[in-house]
Amino acid sequence: MTQAEIIAVGNEVLSGDVVDTNSNWLARQVTRRGGRVARITTIPDTVDIIAQAVRDAVARRADLILVTGGLGPTADDLTLAGIAAGLGRNLTEDAAALGMVARRYAELAARGYVQPGLTDARRKMAVLPQGSRPLWNSIGGAPGVRVDVEDATIVALPGVPEEMKAIFLESLTDLWAERLPLAYAERAGLAQVQDDSLLAPHHRAVSAAFPNVYIKTRVQAFGMADTILVTFAASASTAAEAQARVDAAFDALRDLLAAADIAFVGA
Amino acid sequence: MTQAEIIAVGNEVLSGDVVDTNSNWLARQVTRRGGRVARITTIPDTVDIIAQAVRDAVARRADLILVTGGLGPTADDLTLAGIAAGLGRNLTEDAAALGMVARRYAELAARGYVQPGLTDARRKMAVLPQGSRPLWNSIGGAPGVRVDVEDATIVALPGVPEEMKAIFLESLTDLWAERLPLAYAERAGLAQVQDDSLLAPHHRAVSAAFPNVYIKTRVQAFGMADTILVTFAASASTAAEAQARVDAAFDALRDLLAAADIAFVGA
Repeated sequence: MTQAEIIAVGNEVLSGDVVDTNSNWLARQVTRRGGRVARITTIPDTVDIIAQAVRDAVARRADLILVTGGLGPTADDLTLAGIAAGLGRNLTEDAAALGMVARRYAELAARGYVQPGLTDARRKMAVLPQGSRPLWNSIGGAPGVRVDVEDATIVALPGVPEEMKAIFLESLTDLWAERLPLAYAERAGLAQVQDDSLLAPHHRAVSAAFPNVYIKTRVQAFGMADTILVTFAASASTAAEAQARVDAAFDALRDLLAAADIAFVGA
Repeated sequence: MTQAEIIAVGNEVLSGDVVDTNSNWLARQVTRRGGRVARITTIPDTVDIIAQAVRDAVARRADLILVTGGLGPTADDLTLAGIAAGLGRNLTEDAAALGMVARRYAELAARGYVQPGLTDARRKMAVLPQGSRPLWNSIGGAPGVRVDVEDATIVALPGVPEEMKAIFLESLTDLWAERLPLAYAERAGLAQVQDDSLLAPHHRAVSAAFPNVYIKTRVQAFGMADTILVTFAASASTAAEAQARVDAAFDALRDLLAAADIAFVGA
């Protein structure tokens, strides 16, 4: 199973100005496709810290390192400099990336949205760590960047959510076929019980019996609700197998709860 | 300035089932009160990984380590075991914490919300790393936990947002007077400009001139918007000083943009 790490680069997340929804979206994608996110690290737009975070993720043997944010034209967009420093590679202008940037801005200028021309700030988005491949961004100006290093693949994506999603979904299908090929299933149920602690022993028993199924209880409002949401999730090589694992754990918990006089229905 | 780190513990965040809004709320609190969040780390409910994350934050000289999630009664709530392992301390039942848990459940049972009594699952919430102090939770069952270690303070808070906020706001005022005593100011403006890259040189100049002010530009939709949001934020020992710093940077950018024929108005 692919072990992924997400590195979110952005002072605006650390200051609390912006909620990092990118990491949640990426975590769902990785999980649904059969991978596992081992860690999400949010760090500032600082070259040394980005470099160390990349080295740490490689050292922890992550197969896939997804880095978001900091690819834009401004002075505080330092992600590619950080990745290059972390890998001990030079930064150089990439011809393919420059072609992508030129094409985007020519299109936007033709529609009257921006001034034409490759300014220094725009050219900066085509300066990549050596050995990188640019990834077409169908929404915005900054290409994504893919770097393969030892057994890991590093993918840098823009922080603007629509651009991040477009590159992930459109420009990496070959990588996902290799790294995230699995199917994913989930199922939820509602337990009619006043208190999470009454569910705990049954939750524990089913988790132990079905180690491949991730089972989580969610209390909606402490002490007030008489239902608790229980979610089951599993990955497998086929969708049918993932569904069968989830269903088996769901049925086992339902049977245990029925014996304890606790109603449990699909949600 | 207090250097804070946030450690969010939760498989449900790593799987993408839940968006971690707690870290954003805590980051805003720390920033507004004059601290700085250096890192947010999201990790699974695994004792060894929690232990290592706590040790790493202490080793990076964080003054304040805010840990969220994993304080509840279920088997996968392992945060206190992880903190204890990270600090090399034993876990012991804490009398004050047990009193808090007993009081909460007695209140809820009196209102008919839960069954009365201290079950093993409920007692678990009063088993703390040695040398901890429990923090009253006015909303839910699990006390927060404070541990002072070398020059750092570790605060463990529940993952349920309302409980996390209640403990932070109500049960730690003495700590904030010491660690987060400063005032915070922010101000925003809208630049009438088609493209972030045209703003970049002016942004860079003002950032260099006002290193104590954090200035961020936000593009709403690439290539489509004719306005870019610029936010300025600063902390200082008094609210007036923080505001003066923000205002000076705001005025400097407005003047530079006026000279470049770019309108800039308060937002």
